Amino acid sequence: MKAYLISIGDELLIGQTINTNVAFIGEQISENNITIIKSVVISDDIKLIIDELELASIKADVIICTGGLGPTHDDVTRSAFVQYFKTELIRNEEVIEDIKRMLVRRGRELRKTHEDQAMVPKIAEIIRNENGTAPGYWIEINEKIFIVTPGVPYEMKAMMTNYIIPKLIKKIGTPDNFIKKVTLQTTGLPESALAERLGDIDELLNGAKLAFLPNQYGVRLRITVKSNNEEEAQNHLLGIEQKIRTKIGRFIYGRDDESLEEVVGRHLNERELRIAVAESCTGGGLANRITDINGSSKYFERGVVTYSNAAKVELLKVDEDVMLEKGAVSAEVAMQMAEGIKSISGADIGVSLTGIMGPTGAVTDKPVGTVFIGYCDDKVCTAKRFQFGEDRILNKHRATQAALDMIRRSILGISFEE
Amino acid sequence: MKAYLISIGDELLIGQTINTNVAFIGEQISENNITIIKSVVISDDIKLIIDELELASIKADVIICTGGLGPTHDDVTRSAFVQYFKTELIRNEEVIEDIKRMLVRRGRELRKTHEDQAMVPKIAEIIRNENGTAPGYWIEINEKIFIVTPGVPYEMKAMMTNYIIPKLIKKIGTPDNFIKKVTLQTTGLPESALAERLGDIDELLNGAKLAFLPNQYGVRLRITVKSNNEEEAQNHLLGIEQKIRTKIGRFIYGRDDESLEEVVGRHLNERELRIAVAESCTGGGLANRITDINGSSKYFERGVVTYSNAAKVELLKVDEDVMLEKGAVSAEVAMQMAEGIKSISGADIGVSLTGIMGPTGAVTDKPVGTVFIGYCDDKVCTAKRFQFGEDRILNKHRATQAALDMIRRSILGISFEE
Repeated sequence: MKAYLISIGDELLIGQTINTNVAFIGEQISENNITIIKSVVISDDIKLIIDELELASIKADVIICTGGLGPTHDDVTRSAFVQYFKTELIRNEEVIEDIKRMLVRRGRELRKTHEDQAMVPKIAEIIRNENGTAPGYWIEINEKIFIVTPGVPYEMKAMMTNYIIPKLIKKIGTPDNFIKKVTLQTTGLPESALAERLGDIDELLNGAKLAFLPNQYGVRLRITVKSNNEEEAQNHLLGIEQKIRTKIGRFIYGRDDESLEEVVGRHLNERELRIAVAESCTGGGLANRITDINGSSKYFERGVVTYSNAAKVELLKVDEDVMLEKGAVSAEVAMQMAEGIKSISGADIGVSLTGIMGPTGAVTDKPVGTVFIGYCDDKVCTAKRFQFGEDRILNKHRATQAALDMIRRSILGISFEE
Repeated sequence: MKAYLISIGDELLIGQTINTNVAFIGEQISENNITIIKSVVISDDIKLIIDELELASIKADVIICTGGLGPTHDDVTRSAFVQYFKTELIRNEEVIEDIKRMLVRRGRELRKTHEDQAMVPKIAEIIRNENGTAPGYWIEINEKIFIVTPGVPYEMKAMMTNYIIPKLIKKIGTPDNFIKKVTLQTTGLPESALAERLGDIDELLNGAKLAFLPNQYGVRLRITVKSNNEEEAQNHLLGIEQKIRTKIGRFIYGRDDESLEEVVGRHLNERELRIAVAESCTGGGLANRITDINGSSKYFERGVVTYSNAAKVELLKVDEDVMLEKGAVSAEVAMQMAEGIKSISGADIGVSLTGIMGPTGAVTDKPVGTVFIGYCDDKVCTAKRFQFGEDRILNKHRATQAALDMIRRSILGISFEE
């Protein structure tokens, strides 16, 4: 099965918006054995959209369009579809009901523009939109599938995950070739160091594929095996994962899409441990990640963002003399912060961060990117120094990741060393 | 002049890499009066590249390709160019010298793969690459311009900025049409309500273009005008901006790429005001956004993440009886939290958030998405109720945005009402 992606929107062409939709759709689609032959971006122009649909329908089996379904005058995708399929708009009651429910939840009233959103091409099946007012369309005609969703990423993603991908999988049926994949999430070592520790890659893989996918949190290792026997594929995959874990197991924190905050949350929950955090340089970023997880109130007791020195002294009882002598960015202050937040909160674990995120603020011996992370529980109280890069936002992400990984390692009894 | 962008690389199609190159090129090109008619992504396949060059050369005057110029087996762009232009490869001494200089800087030796990188299509002018070994090509034939650069973003960007854009500007000469753009960032009203308040769009625009670009933080309004007189274009643009500001000014927080945390930071800094925040439901997300801005330590005093009720009482002196009677998610508790953080920190402004982010936690009269935001300064102490959606992470983003906007409005003397 071949797919063709059409992104519609001037903002994508003039560089005002980075097209993250096609990366998401590309990943979802290709993981399900559908080959993407082309991805195009065109402007909000009825004639151009119709021309592209024409072209795509010759080359591909599935045509996925995003964007231009909103309620304003510059949204012309629906009109293009009506013209291309020589169909007409009809009012869809299910859509009206969905919109009404959403408006009630948000305390807003039904307006004329909302009613207009419920006018949909007659030949289309509706793809419900849980996060917005414009529905998507699913149109099957002459053995081709045309799919349209709004361009707003979170609206599109929910529609893709909950409706479009499952329906496409059903259409495809049982494949001739079984593809099995797993992604191992690592943190703490760069790509080159991981590759070195893995040794002879060809021997390790024995015909399978391995991709190194770095991002700001670490390196994801995606293993892919293909076989005409499903069990064989599964066993080969597990064998490789096992070998990789033997070599770099301590750096692997999760499988597939698990985030580190999810993994740490699960570990804390299972052990009925409660945590509290004291942040300086990450400015609430660690607490923010921990509380991204539903149910985190069970194990997250509190956090403080002690940006000023006064806050460090008042809230965490950091010793002013130590701060003067060693500096607010030091192992000693990190340890006192971790100890302080553990003690005032009564939590089982206290974690702290203090550092220089940049672009300004560097001092002698402490360049931009220097971060000390403190960790205290009932048995140990320690701090570790990290050296990240030059970019403020990336440094915040990396520092919160390193702190979460220290919590993970400590709970699992893994040393903080490489 | 019309441009056509071709991105080459499997990793872009399967979603392994987000295509940031086209956003960069799109911005650079369209700012210089070149219209991008289409942007396509295709895989590393000689035949597909040749087909696309054929198609592009019919539709556009400038064809810009990125990717597939590297030294490994899957890089086939150069071969496709040689075939398409029926030319041959010749050794380019300037490229060899560039590569040697770079290798010396990095302490590496010249290898066979490097020598191969210096073999370039005979009809091409070379675009020098300061940051890598693969040069780009500039080919002019039959009044069409074909440009190729490597896909590595920082290599491509330097080539674009230092060579390609200046050379294109020279080609274009003085433009017949001047294009002027501005983006107004709004928050607090959905797309449909904004459109309604703007009234008759055609009358407002008088030939200009207006695009509504929603995301989780609000709706960006992009205005574009075109004229053969630069001053006229500028005046028309300012006139429309002025009219829009008259109708929905209170919802506009910034121009172009400014974030709300940047705007609020600037306002606080200019007035030498210090702020402190107390978060429950957003779990540090507000402090995290405020501290994303370099220099925020000047106006951000501290934050607390009082997830547990104990923390609300101990750190913020919230009244336990009030919490029992009204619930932790209530206007009363939000106000006490804002008052508490202002008072303990000594900051000029205290802001607080308490709410139910979901997916679980809803109670009678307080569905998922209910958030109370408290605001206190020396003159007022108040709280406002918001109703967001069902998605936990989006709710956190929306709530921090609403809190930042209350700070902005208060500083500027704008009422909190719609």
